[in-house]
Amino acid sequence: MSKEKIVPKTLSGMMELLPKEQLKFEQIKKTLEEVYRLYGFFPLDTPVLEASSVLLAKAGGETEKQIYRFSKGDNDMTMRFDLTVPLAKYVAKNAGELSFPFRRYQIGKVYRGERAQKGRFREFYQADIDIIGDGKLSILNDAEIPSMIYDIFTKLGLDDFTIRINNRKVLNGFYELLSLSEKSQDIMRTVDKIEKIGKEKVIAELELLEITPEDAEKITQFISSTATNEEAFEKLSAYIGKNEQYDKGVEELKAVIDAIGMFGVPAKNYKVDLSIARGLDYYTGTVYETTFNPHPEIGSICSGGRYDELASFYTDRHLPGVGISIGLTRLFYILDEMDYISEAYVAPSDVMILPMVDDNSYVIALSSKLRAAGIKTQISAESGKMKAKLNYANRQGIPFVIFVGEDEMATGKITLKNMDTGAQESFDAEAAAEHIINYVNGKNTKKIINIK
Amino acid sequence: MSKEKIVPKTLSGMMELLPKEQLKFEQIKKTLEEVYRLYGFFPLDTPVLEASSVLLAKAGGETEKQIYRFSKGDNDMTMRFDLTVPLAKYVAKNAGELSFPFRRYQIGKVYRGERAQKGRFREFYQADIDIIGDGKLSILNDAEIPSMIYDIFTKLGLDDFTIRINNRKVLNGFYELLSLSEKSQDIMRTVDKIEKIGKEKVIAELELLEITPEDAEKITQFISSTATNEEAFEKLSAYIGKNEQYDKGVEELKAVIDAIGMFGVPAKNYKVDLSIARGLDYYTGTVYETTFNPHPEIGSICSGGRYDELASFYTDRHLPGVGISIGLTRLFYILDEMDYISEAYVAPSDVMILPMVDDNSYVIALSSKLRAAGIKTQISAESGKMKAKLNYANRQGIPFVIFVGEDEMATGKITLKNMDTGAQESFDAEAAAEHIINYVNGKNTKKIINIK
Repeated sequence: MSKEKIVPKTLSGMMELLPKEQLKFEQIKKTLEEVYRLYGFFPLDTPVLEASSVLLAKAGGETEKQIYRFSKGDNDMTMRFDLTVPLAKYVAKNAGELSFPFRRYQIGKVYRGERAQKGRFREFYQADIDIIGDGKLSILNDAEIPSMIYDIFTKLGLDDFTIRINNRKVLNGFYELLSLSEKSQDIMRTVDKIEKIGKEKVIAELELLEITPEDAEKITQFISSTATNEEAFEKLSAYIGKNEQYDKGVEELKAVIDAIGMFGVPAKNYKVDLSIARGLDYYTGTVYETTFNPHPEIGSICSGGRYDELASFYTDRHLPGVGISIGLTRLFYILDEMDYISEAYVAPSDVMILPMVDDNSYVIALSSKLRAAGIKTQISAESGKMKAKLNYANRQGIPFVIFVGEDEMATGKITLKNMDTGAQESFDAEAAAEHIINYVNGKNTKKIINIK
Repeated sequence: MSKEKIVPKTLSGMMELLPKEQLKFEQIKKTLEEVYRLYGFFPLDTPVLEASSVLLAKAGGETEKQIYRFSKGDNDMTMRFDLTVPLAKYVAKNAGELSFPFRRYQIGKVYRGERAQKGRFREFYQADIDIIGDGKLSILNDAEIPSMIYDIFTKLGLDDFTIRINNRKVLNGFYELLSLSEKSQDIMRTVDKIEKIGKEKVIAELELLEITPEDAEKITQFISSTATNEEAFEKLSAYIGKNEQYDKGVEELKAVIDAIGMFGVPAKNYKVDLSIARGLDYYTGTVYETTFNPHPEIGSICSGGRYDELASFYTDRHLPGVGISIGLTRLFYILDEMDYISEAYVAPSDVMILPMVDDNSYVIALSSKLRAAGIKTQISAESGKMKAKLNYANRQGIPFVIFVGEDEMATGKITLKNMDTGAQESFDAEAAAEHIINYVNGKNTKKIINIK
């Protein structure tokens, strides 16, 4: 009699994938890593657990409520809720040992104890890139970051996206110009809704903030979208020469937009959007949001910007930076739900060897030979029916099966079956390896995201 | 006046690496992943947090004391302390959706709230591989697992290691033969110390367990090491035919040892070691430990074995498996402390472009061209002295710097400086790319572990 069993459940809000979905996720993650590395970024890996005093140095309100915090022994610990605070700690702690500009990426799990609901995660991957300067940081970095995002999304196959770019100095300067600096936070929060609720309602809400109809008109006119970046800069030029911060912001925005073009990003994939403000207080210059155009309703899929002080809670050292973050788990979840992710990368192996003899020596030697050629190979070692074994390969999307029987061992030829087409051919081992590699390489040129 | 600063400390027992060390670690991790994938293993990624009821189904005693457990809302949660229990949960939960044998690897962080001390970690990576069968699992898998370990360690450069292999059925059968089954746990715990305390003291301790001098002699004789596997099997043959479990164990051990040879593992890297028992109760057949021969004092660097029931706490389904685990963080720490890890992989970029002109268009286009060729490229965008920039490249081990000035832009030639040798040459962009690739590929043939 067996003991009572415990239900093997996974906590809600935690993404745990079946093998095929996991392989899709890995392919996306790998693409991010490849691009990050191509741009010379370090793969940082900070602990999931940090001292609460360190992690919550600047937090408060909502953050405090959502964290996983606990004590053990003398340690009051919190699971990280983003990758920015750990970066700030790391840079402040190791500033003497790092070379600046410090370029790092980190793809790691972060934790937020939010109320669980469909598509909301309590444990999720963020993929962050940041460039941190020591005292100063060239504006060129503000252009490089979105260019990397362009590379990543096009490599993935997510072609129809727009990186929207603005500059906080432009906004702050503009509100200064209108003598509305004190209300600028409220105004930005209001105009942020313009796409959802429309211009009329935004004007009505602005008037509740005691903004004159003239100013409300100026504001909505200012943040309204333009067809081209040239038009945006034309609009911006109307206010030039009246406010230093504003002028500086326009200059930076122009430098960023120009350099993004030099990085080869097509005009359709980036645009000045004067309505973008980003909620976080610490952005001080360039800000980014990214729209996946077929589905604007999912919000920004990649956001970030320039900040003046990365680590002011830990150090007096002036550490300006620029960075961007992809909410990888959420993005994957959305794309997978929409059935946009290709099945091209779901096979655990390129080939399964199916022995029809008891002597394993030939089969094992063959498997070693195929692996040495870079072919992902597994041996079907279990006893059982041929049909069940072919089903096993089929269900997993393994593209090839090799049959090894007495004949094959005697002649040195093997029988290779293409599971996609059903075609079956006889090869010697080298030719079989080449055939497999060519076919799999052909499959691997497919983009992982395939928007129908 | 600045506010009081918080000290940016990292919790003790958490490995947080500086960039160069992190890149070494990543290179090792990547090698593991490559081999795991070549053998057709799935990259599983389960949550760090699990329901305490699920994770602690079988735990008790020491495990319970060392865990990080806390509650939030209705959830009583624990951070995983190994990757085996989450695997058991995953397989039991998803058995209907998985294809068996289920081959998975997982490289993930696990947590143990141990007393902090040098070289002991509270957060550390384990790298696990397991093959799970549905009802049955061929003994060939027990040979494949150590063959993968051989591939990994030799690819890493950790050549002088020995995978020690035994079979629990052999041991259990042997103690049955001597009518010492009831004491077998105590005996195994005692004889496990033979290398540390010597044969005499082991015999003395065995006598304390009320084992006759004759049996104590038989036991120490049995578990004593042999020069070759042939000798080991000769010794084993003396007891054949007297106990069914024993005979079965010897048969399995023989099959495993034979097949490891077929996988091409050299005789010096594996051996029958009848003293290996593995503490964990759940191993039922093959068991492995791995000695890094220059430093036996660090203990087994890779251990595992065969178990009959992976998930009996969650399901009645009979799920036998075989697996092995590398304590990656600890292994890295030890090798790095011993200065055994090569500096070949510590550069974040292959090349840094150093512009000496204000117009960035040429430099940016060049960076895109180099990246398209697969070259890890960064632009030195900051203003500042040439010498400081070369120092930046040097400190990070970036092997090449490209100078772009008016001349270079006019002629289309660039000046490439090899930072390792100091050599400086003029190339057109394509030739420069080829030169960089060849040089970097040469470096990348170096093994990451380099035992002097």
